Amino acid sequence: MTEVVNIRHEHASIREWEVRIEQLLEGSARDAAVFNVNEDDDREYDAIFLGGGGGGRFGAAYLRAMGGRQLIIEQWPFLGGSCPHNACVPHHLFSECAAELMLQRTMSGRLWFRDMTDVRASIKDVVDVFRRGRVGPHAIMNYQSKEQLDLEYVLNARGTIIDAHTVEVAGRRFRAKNLVLGLGARAQELHCPGADLKGVFNYATLVEDLDYEPGDTVVVVGGSKTAVEYGCFFNATGRRTILVVRSQLLKTITDDETRGYVVDRMRDQGVEILEGALVDRIEAGADGRACAIHIKTSKGIERIATDFVFHALGETPNSEMPAAALGVKLGAKNEVLVNSQLQTSVPNVYAIGDLIGGPMEMFKARKSGVYAARHIMGEAIEYQPKAWPDFLHTHYEVSWMGLSEQEARARYKDIITIKMPPDTPDGLNVALPASDRTMLYAFLEPKMSGFQKLILDAATRRVVGAFHVGYGAKDAFQYLNHLMKQGLTIDQLGDMDELFLNPTHFIQLARLRAGNRTLRNL
Amino acid sequence: MTEVVNIRHEHASIREWEVRIEQLLEGSARDAAVFNVNEDDDREYDAIFLGGGGGGRFGAAYLRAMGGRQLIIEQWPFLGGSCPHNACVPHHLFSECAAELMLQRTMSGRLWFRDMTDVRASIKDVVDVFRRGRVGPHAIMNYQSKEQLDLEYVLNARGTIIDAHTVEVAGRRFRAKNLVLGLGARAQELHCPGADLKGVFNYATLVEDLDYEPGDTVVVVGGSKTAVEYGCFFNATGRRTILVVRSQLLKTITDDETRGYVVDRMRDQGVEILEGALVDRIEAGADGRACAIHIKTSKGIERIATDFVFHALGETPNSEMPAAALGVKLGAKNEVLVNSQLQTSVPNVYAIGDLIGGPMEMFKARKSGVYAARHIMGEAIEYQPKAWPDFLHTHYEVSWMGLSEQEARARYKDIITIKMPPDTPDGLNVALPASDRTMLYAFLEPKMSGFQKLILDAATRRVVGAFHVGYGAKDAFQYLNHLMKQGLTIDQLGDMDELFLNPTHFIQLARLRAGNRTLRNL
Repeated sequence: MTEVVNIRHEHASIREWEVRIEQLLEGSARDAAVFNVNEDDDREYDAIFLGGGGGGRFGAAYLRAMGGRQLIIEQWPFLGGSCPHNACVPHHLFSECAAELMLQRTMSGRLWFRDMTDVRASIKDVVDVFRRGRVGPHAIMNYQSKEQLDLEYVLNARGTIIDAHTVEVAGRRFRAKNLVLGLGARAQELHCPGADLKGVFNYATLVEDLDYEPGDTVVVVGGSKTAVEYGCFFNATGRRTILVVRSQLLKTITDDETRGYVVDRMRDQGVEILEGALVDRIEAGADGRACAIHIKTSKGIERIATDFVFHALGETPNSEMPAAALGVKLGAKNEVLVNSQLQTSVPNVYAIGDLIGGPMEMFKARKSGVYAARHIMGEAIEYQPKAWPDFLHTHYEVSWMGLSEQEARARYKDIITIKMPPDTPDGLNVALPASDRTMLYAFLEPKMSGFQKLILDAATRRVVGAFHVGYGAKDAFQYLNHLMKQGLTIDQLGDMDELFLNPTHFIQLARLRAGNRTLRNL
Repeated sequence: MTEVVNIRHEHASIREWEVRIEQLLEGSARDAAVFNVNEDDDREYDAIFLGGGGGGRFGAAYLRAMGGRQLIIEQWPFLGGSCPHNACVPHHLFSECAAELMLQRTMSGRLWFRDMTDVRASIKDVVDVFRRGRVGPHAIMNYQSKEQLDLEYVLNARGTIIDAHTVEVAGRRFRAKNLVLGLGARAQELHCPGADLKGVFNYATLVEDLDYEPGDTVVVVGGSKTAVEYGCFFNATGRRTILVVRSQLLKTITDDETRGYVVDRMRDQGVEILEGALVDRIEAGADGRACAIHIKTSKGIERIATDFVFHALGETPNSEMPAAALGVKLGAKNEVLVNSQLQTSVPNVYAIGDLIGGPMEMFKARKSGVYAARHIMGEAIEYQPKAWPDFLHTHYEVSWMGLSEQEARARYKDIITIKMPPDTPDGLNVALPASDRTMLYAFLEPKMSGFQKLILDAATRRVVGAFHVGYGAKDAFQYLNHLMKQGLTIDQLGDMDELFLNPTHFIQLARLRAGNRTLRNL
């Protein structure tokens, strides 16, 4: 019988939550289920959220705010899901290290910067910093959810679906009018001989298991966001880093020119990129840990000695339990199929977040949770993520929205672009686009100061796409994307008040062209 | 007779422009006027822009794009004005150094960061980096203005106003239907004995004249944006830095709580702040350079030994010539008075930019130029800067817009705020708001990860103000401010697609509260 700790009448501070979560994760209380259930409320639950990640937590918060009654059931001892535990938050710490290391290496020996020639940064130390600190965000979310959002939840216990209205957890059954599945996804496995050796990691096992300092060569398998984000970090630490990409690197950046800038800068940093390459097998050393990887390319098989292989091959939805227990219909990629109301094939069962497939991004997790909640509470809603802004890290922050230049040219008769650096005989060797965090590059290594492009339909004067490589534009792309969907024109953009020096130079550049009746490139 | 170099039929690259500007600034060609005048066009000029800074250049570009004919006359050998030469651009480089140094000092000895205990960064080296590199942006603007914007200009020669239609430059008179004055502003002088000693600088003379390495103590006179921006840089280099402030530091940040966070973090970095203090005199050493400053406070006069005094006391418009030559009416602060059409008291004479007074910000310079151009070209326009977003650097980026919490509470019955860190018993000791460039702080020094606040009118659910201390939000505030002026509500904000982890956590925090019919703080 699972031990149950009832915390409904406790009001722990964030710091006290940190201590408790540490005990639940590793200490004495590892098996205790944590109950924050309002036993005084005899209303039936409007919804049980199975899974307390971004989707479940935001959905539950919205439903509660609307006056409904909800219960989150989460197997981890904290809310927020994998993101702060082993996925997006550690990647942000690692990417910040990559950006900082690139700056320090570029400035090596200049101004007050130390000589970085022989400096290899420890991967394990950075992972340890994350591992020690991650209960902080966990604690904040547990605190906020209870004390500020007034949510009910059961943590640190696996819920078992009994039927479309019933979940069993820690020996107790909870009933609700609706069930909202937010079970997330997990890293796809690498399939090759040696894939299960020590020394082979994905984003989750890296954080959970790394207990040695990787050697001087890292091999990353995969070619999309996660592979590049981790690969650039490993490279920045001062290790030979090889990306093994089945087809083409970073196809997700649809604009060819932007992608070219991004990939060229990665190569400048020494990242080696093998496209059209597959893993043949991973070889074990005498200690049982990986000691080499064999890569198959068009030139044959190459053996690369390494004690550290990282793979990022995409995600698989955790749809097995609901498929078995409820018979919810699944799609080709194991995702739970839902309609625009987030309803599965089973009445009163909703699914949200990564469980319903791509885009496996935080905004979709949270918003699908919120929209499911609104539908449960009787609102007429439709939700399909579309035309969202997108983002990844290399050593830089790369943000984009809308159409690539090629896509725009295929769709519209007359496309103009506004770029930095502009097309001039000097190419990238001009200190544009300078702004916060690219000033040192602008003055000492102009080519590294970034790239950006605004794409406009000349006929309607509307912004139809934007791409940015640099720093400090990610936040803006959220609002700019909203404005683009409203029909933002070059004239409206040029009439805004810019904060000089701004990372997206779009406002002032738009203004330089907006006087034209017939728009021209810049 | 001034030498004239006619470049109309040359098409120099950006790099070639750099070489030419260097010659014009310091080399053999110092006295040559550079003429880029279209002698084949026999139309009368629609406008002469006297001064080619942000206002003149953008105004001229807009007028030209509308089909008008323009001429810029600029005394420096480059367009763009003081901003890239000695004002906003160097400050951005210095502020980036401040942010970077604070990070390196905070992380000193941890991970791969060197021990910074005894590291004092050279002020002169950073100034030299700027000085060597500043012709780059100059060259870009000369190139862009000629080759991409098709502007006519005369550089490196002082224009003399003859009458409301005529300017003489390098021995030649140019006539135009209108005259647009964009003569800018200059640093106000410090008035006290010793103010003209070597070792006493403002933002312009720092960049032009610094030829020694300042000692271990810096005194900054002034309490607003510029004083703080430079003061934080001097502090970050590892010097004792004392701010001498007549009234209160950073009154420009209207929100008390945000201002408190900003000032507390400055104090944490060791910045010493003397409020209600005045400079009595500056003392000369044996070498004729400043060796001490005497500060008058309520406790009496304190002598501080220093060989480096920096003052930032605001700006005075350069209105003397137009007042004398044309009799344009001036305001109480020497600014040229204009109406909402940017017209001065003299027919056909417009004034723009810093010359017309505050806010002396880039957006206003450029937009006032553009609006003057549109009026000259026959459009009915009105321009008065209002409700613009604002910004400054400490070691952080500080961005804001709209009403402070106090102002909002005075104006509306029911104000709610959404904050990070939230009001909890743990105060600032939680790792919020983490994002790019605050991840290392979030994990190792939570208190330093920033502060942000969104202010909403509960009745209309509208955003009425926002404040942010951290990194990466400046660009967003431009677009967010535009949305706020459109009436942005918490519901619209919560329905946007965020890019996780985003520096303004406003979208997702709004979403956590938007389900409430009656809004509550978060």
